[in-house]
Amino acid sequence: MRLLLLVFIFSSINLYSQDHPNLILTAAAVDNIRENLGKVPMFDNYVATVQEEVDAEIKEGVIVPIPKDMAGGYTHERHKRNFFMLQKAGALYQILDDTKYAEYVKESLFEYARIYKSLPIHPQPRSYARGKLFWQCLNDSNWLVYVSQAYDCIYTFLTKPERRHLEEELFRPYADYLSKENPQFFNRIHNHSTWGNAAVGMIGLVMNDKELIERALYGLPLGDMDATARDNDGGRILDESGKAGFLANIDDPFSPDGYYTEGPYYQRYTMYPYLLLAVSLHNKIPESKIFEFKEGVLLKAVNALLNLTDVDGEFFLLNDAQKGMSYFSRELVSAVDIAYYYGDQDPGLLSIAARQAKITLDGAGFAVAQAIETGKAKPFNKKSIELADGPKGNKGGVSIIRSGTPNDEFNLVTKYTMHGNSHGHFDKLSHSLFFRGEEILQDYGLARFVNIDQKNGGGYLKENTSWAKQTIAHNTLVINETSHFDGDFDMSSRHHPEKFFSDVSSNGSQIISIQERNAYPETPLHRTLIVLEDPRLEHSLLLDVFKADSKTPQQYDLPFHYFGQIMTHDFQMNSSVSLSPLGTDNGYQHLWKIASGKPKEGFNQLSWLYNNHFVTLSLVADKQDEYIFTMLGANDPNFNLRNDKTLLVRRQNTASTLFISALEIHGSYSPVSELSINSTSTLKNIVLLLSTDSYVIFNISFKTGKDLQIALATENNSKTKKHSLTIEGETVEWKGPYLLRDKQ
Amino acid sequence: MRLLLLVFIFSSINLYSQDHPNLILTAAAVDNIRENLGKVPMFDNYVATVQEEVDAEIKEGVIVPIPKDMAGGYTHERHKRNFFMLQKAGALYQILDDTKYAEYVKESLFEYARIYKSLPIHPQPRSYARGKLFWQCLNDSNWLVYVSQAYDCIYTFLTKPERRHLEEELFRPYADYLSKENPQFFNRIHNHSTWGNAAVGMIGLVMNDKELIERALYGLPLGDMDATARDNDGGRILDESGKAGFLANIDDPFSPDGYYTEGPYYQRYTMYPYLLLAVSLHNKIPESKIFEFKEGVLLKAVNALLNLTDVDGEFFLLNDAQKGMSYFSRELVSAVDIAYYYGDQDPGLLSIAARQAKITLDGAGFAVAQAIETGKAKPFNKKSIELADGPKGNKGGVSIIRSGTPNDEFNLVTKYTMHGNSHGHFDKLSHSLFFRGEEILQDYGLARFVNIDQKNGGGYLKENTSWAKQTIAHNTLVINETSHFDGDFDMSSRHHPEKFFSDVSSNGSQIISIQERNAYPETPLHRTLIVLEDPRLEHSLLLDVFKADSKTPQQYDLPFHYFGQIMTHDFQMNSSVSLSPLGTDNGYQHLWKIASGKPKEGFNQLSWLYNNHFVTLSLVADKQDEYIFTMLGANDPNFNLRNDKTLLVRRQNTASTLFISALEIHGSYSPVSELSINSTSTLKNIVLLLSTDSYVIFNISFKTGKDLQIALATENNSKTKKHSLTIEGETVEWKGPYLLRDKQ
Repeated sequence: MRLLLLVFIFSSINLYSQDHPNLILTAAAVDNIRENLGKVPMFDNYVATVQEEVDAEIKEGVIVPIPKDMAGGYTHERHKRNFFMLQKAGALYQILDDTKYAEYVKESLFEYARIYKSLPIHPQPRSYARGKLFWQCLNDSNWLVYVSQAYDCIYTFLTKPERRHLEEELFRPYADYLSKENPQFFNRIHNHSTWGNAAVGMIGLVMNDKELIERALYGLPLGDMDATARDNDGGRILDESGKAGFLANIDDPFSPDGYYTEGPYYQRYTMYPYLLLAVSLHNKIPESKIFEFKEGVLLKAVNALLNLTDVDGEFFLLNDAQKGMSYFSRELVSAVDIAYYYGDQDPGLLSIAARQAKITLDGAGFAVAQAIETGKAKPFNKKSIELADGPKGNKGGVSIIRSGTPNDEFNLVTKYTMHGNSHGHFDKLSHSLFFRGEEILQDYGLARFVNIDQKNGGGYLKENTSWAKQTIAHNTLVINETSHFDGDFDMSSRHHPEKFFSDVSSNGSQIISIQERNAYPETPLHRTLIVLEDPRLEHSLLLDVFKADSKTPQQYDLPFHYFGQIMTHDFQMNSSVSLSPLGTDNGYQHLWKIASGKPKEGFNQLSWLYNNHFVTLSLVADKQDEYIFTMLGANDPNFNLRNDKTLLVRRQNTASTLFISALEIHGSYSPVSELSINSTSTLKNIVLLLSTDSYVIFNISFKTGKDLQIALATENNSKTKKHSLTIEGETVEWKGPYLLRDKQ
Repeated sequence: MRLLLLVFIFSSINLYSQDHPNLILTAAAVDNIRENLGKVPMFDNYVATVQEEVDAEIKEGVIVPIPKDMAGGYTHERHKRNFFMLQKAGALYQILDDTKYAEYVKESLFEYARIYKSLPIHPQPRSYARGKLFWQCLNDSNWLVYVSQAYDCIYTFLTKPERRHLEEELFRPYADYLSKENPQFFNRIHNHSTWGNAAVGMIGLVMNDKELIERALYGLPLGDMDATARDNDGGRILDESGKAGFLANIDDPFSPDGYYTEGPYYQRYTMYPYLLLAVSLHNKIPESKIFEFKEGVLLKAVNALLNLTDVDGEFFLLNDAQKGMSYFSRELVSAVDIAYYYGDQDPGLLSIAARQAKITLDGAGFAVAQAIETGKAKPFNKKSIELADGPKGNKGGVSIIRSGTPNDEFNLVTKYTMHGNSHGHFDKLSHSLFFRGEEILQDYGLARFVNIDQKNGGGYLKENTSWAKQTIAHNTLVINETSHFDGDFDMSSRHHPEKFFSDVSSNGSQIISIQERNAYPETPLHRTLIVLEDPRLEHSLLLDVFKADSKTPQQYDLPFHYFGQIMTHDFQMNSSVSLSPLGTDNGYQHLWKIASGKPKEGFNQLSWLYNNHFVTLSLVADKQDEYIFTMLGANDPNFNLRNDKTLLVRRQNTASTLFISALEIHGSYSPVSELSINSTSTLKNIVLLLSTDSYVIFNISFKTGKDLQIALATENNSKTKKHSLTIEGETVEWKGPYLLRDKQ
């Protein structure tokens, strides 16, 4: 595939279109848009909004300060604002044919050209790859990805000498700085490099500069780069394969399903350069067939990303991820419009575009607006989905189980991916749970306030490593207070969990079963999560069956990271008179122990109230169990962590073991009517009947109705077999990995 | 006034209308509504909604269980649901002329009549006045207030013998139980008694029972009741004046402005019986002119209550109050419709009714729906308002300062009321601050989960006394870790703060200055709060100048109960390695000390992020100051408290002193665009120039623009005087209590 593309490009190199604009906005699209101005209200209104914004900016005048600040600081935010405004002004010039916008772009570019070459490296020394306009090359690349578009839009407005001046004083040295002068930034398999590749490739395409285009697509020669170097997040600088450049950055981090190994938060960020350079290549070199590369993975990735959102369009939190990021981000506005226009015109995308209420100012955005106005939008139906991880799709993955009605949507996010490069967390087999777009069991996300200067210049906080990446920060099993792979990035990067089986048909109960054999080498883990849809229940019920096999006794902690206020518990509990950290390392040093409970034998329940509904957690206790209630915030001198709450089910001095729990969402409370409805659990008991290497069988009883029996076959060779067992004097028979049946 | 009403009632007693319905829904209103069915969509739609609800209930059949549970439990919620449904079914029978609804009411009433006399006192022994259907007479009274309306609606549907049966077996014994058999409940000046009075009065009016009507209006003879008895909340059973009954309950707790001394949360609850018995009297005995009683205080009270809400319609938290209660409650739906119809048809009320999207099924609700449909609604403009407390309006009060635009509304709530009966808190001179309907500086509210059975049967929790009522739970000064009046209810009830002066014209900066001389007898307190509107600022700024006069050194704590995550501070801070409670009593036992800071000399700043905007608190430090950061939750074995955060400015070993602070809301952060805007404070310095018994003068400097000078004259005899002082070598002259001026 790579070779193919190479051939296309170089055979057609002299056929490049010399029209401008022809990068993102094309001359043909401009003609079409101008003809239809005033006819597509959504487009016209959005143009008017952007025009108002840019006009205000033009009034302020061109402001190009000498770089000085970190993210969130004045010069950072000013240069960031500039590149957004230049891109918009360029598009407005083309769409409205008003030279005021071209003049503004020209004047700005000349101002940048005046200072660029003489700028020193940015004074803030934080980054492994310091930029010139910004503290890191990453942000300098953002600037060029946007500004290339502006330059393309005013290309023909400029005289040839003006263009030569800009290219010699600004664009060529800028592109060289991002690539040749910072190979440790440019030549990685990493979202940073994707931005760098796109920046260099896009300006190369505008300038018709073959060398830059080739550099963008295939990377720099490796030379004598340090193969063991690390970036600021502890990630490896060089890919083990030695691959680099834009095509390798598509090949490697995306699975064939379009899952991006760093997770949706970074996928969202990086989709912009991926898609923008792809559209640029498509427009300038159609023969590249870039949208067919790796079986069309770039557009599949947009679909995957949209499926990794809750009902509010917010991304599920996988690896480093800031809460609240959603498909309303500017990157997803572009991605949706591009996927619609360059893909197969999926009408489901139009409903998302309509909800975004923003479009791109180009042919794709115009087509989307036109289609919405003519009533073509259909709902984007999100169903349960499983996305494999790994370049070939054979290195674990994520499964999203969706159930309930659109108003009561219940999303179980199950993570059994690869490590996720430098943004990965040590969270094998972890899960999180959303109900109506609220987090019921949370993934903490990252410990960072992106672009808030007061918090470490907007960069990662040390608590991202000491807490957010640690296993205990996730809803998965921790053994002996150590993180998975002992927190070793290289070890974790070499392994991945396996799916044991799944059945996520979105009709009735759904199930996912996953295994991890390497996180704790002496203790293989096997987790089965069942989302039960049942008329005995108000909403879906989450059942969790977590097996750990160990020959030697050890300590297990199974955390439940909940939100809300405890209403009731049916076991004995002692609250702490003074608070100490629960441990000394691996995240435990950040947890205040606020109370501990001793369960009674068998069935125990804890209920809490969150966002005006009730949640009840039912647990099957072992005699070694202690329930530890914690609050985050210890050893946090800079108030960098949220003070979130956790229940740890701690089981000490135990070899092979089994955790069974059921999480039920029920009822409601209104502070206005003061009515409390269905505030108590429907579950009456969970009784474990059998737990062997081969089987787990248990019964659930409800306050009304029959008991439910659940049987799991847990050995690899028994997944398709017929099973026959005598349980409670009764013969139970089934075929395959599991059985759910009502007891008579 | 009381005598007058008495004369009216008894002179006209034989003229009572014998029509039915004539209590809330009248025969004339029924005629009008029936004629207009199908013509007023808002009314028709709401009738259809109610019909759907009642039809579903009728399908389920009549369910009258033997009483057993506390609030939140089954029998409690079932009987509660019954009285709502009966009231609605009665109205539907009249409006739709469908006997199905009358049959349902009749069948239900007969079922209640079958069991009532033989019911024992409710088995739950928690209340000082146990009911029969519910655990407290209060809820039994709720039942009768609603069911009287249902009985009135089907009165003529029943035969005389049927009515006699219901009255002898149910209503008369029911009314006697609430009054003669529970004088400690019926004869108070308290919202409990108002419900009892209304219940007895309304059923008396339906039954034409003079004795009950008289009992409702004037109370029971005092007899030998225990004058020192207390209710469950520690409030006095008997009013010192010996007054009782409905008219006394209007006279006493309402100020002439319509402020209800227990605060808006209880006013909301109690407005229903006040207004419903008032409407009943108005309809049955128009000569009573009940809406003119005490210069029309009942309808003024509705206006006061609506003005005690934030932009979301939620009540400000004064005394015991559950967060989230708002003018969307059923009681306020009635109140708004009644105030419109029986008042002066204020079109502002219609916009609130439209927002409520609910109406009462009677003449008032119909008139409101009709007026909204004909476009008569106008915005309900809330301005700054001051409401006096006390029966004569001379016992302190509350001042609400509103500033900013409707989208950026800034509400300062200043409390200098009387104690507030049994629901009062020890919070003299406290304030709370709302921005866009969010709490920036919070009042904790109550410690209770109303109607959530799991939490102490839905009743008050002991943390309401140990935390929520204590001074430290409020944004006001605490001396030597003791609450105001040493937490003594009787002492606190004997005193009230005084307003020193105010200027709340809603144009430009506003100011309120208040004094308290008795909370700490040796230390008079004087607080001046200024809401500064200034072009140098993005939003209004809250300035707080708090003086305490003491001859002897003591410890002061000034709490700031904030929400959000700390972003930055410019003073030295040490976080605690392990957490201990800050104190042992008066609420301090519930505070974990999480960090402490030592301010630098002069100006100190602390910023936090809350709901995607920034807040900066600027403090003028004294050399004795320590900044203590706490989290609520110590000594809370049942997880009854929220884990809220507080900054205490602690000043030790100090006699007379002065606290100056400025609270600034600024900027924004979006997790979607990841843009951080205006994240740093505009204030550069606050310099205290003069602090004497007579004057406080200080300068505020901003990052750009001139300095602002503020001078306060703090002696009672100097409020209207001319002042001339030499400050920084310059003569400063002004007249009156304060000066705000730009420095040259």
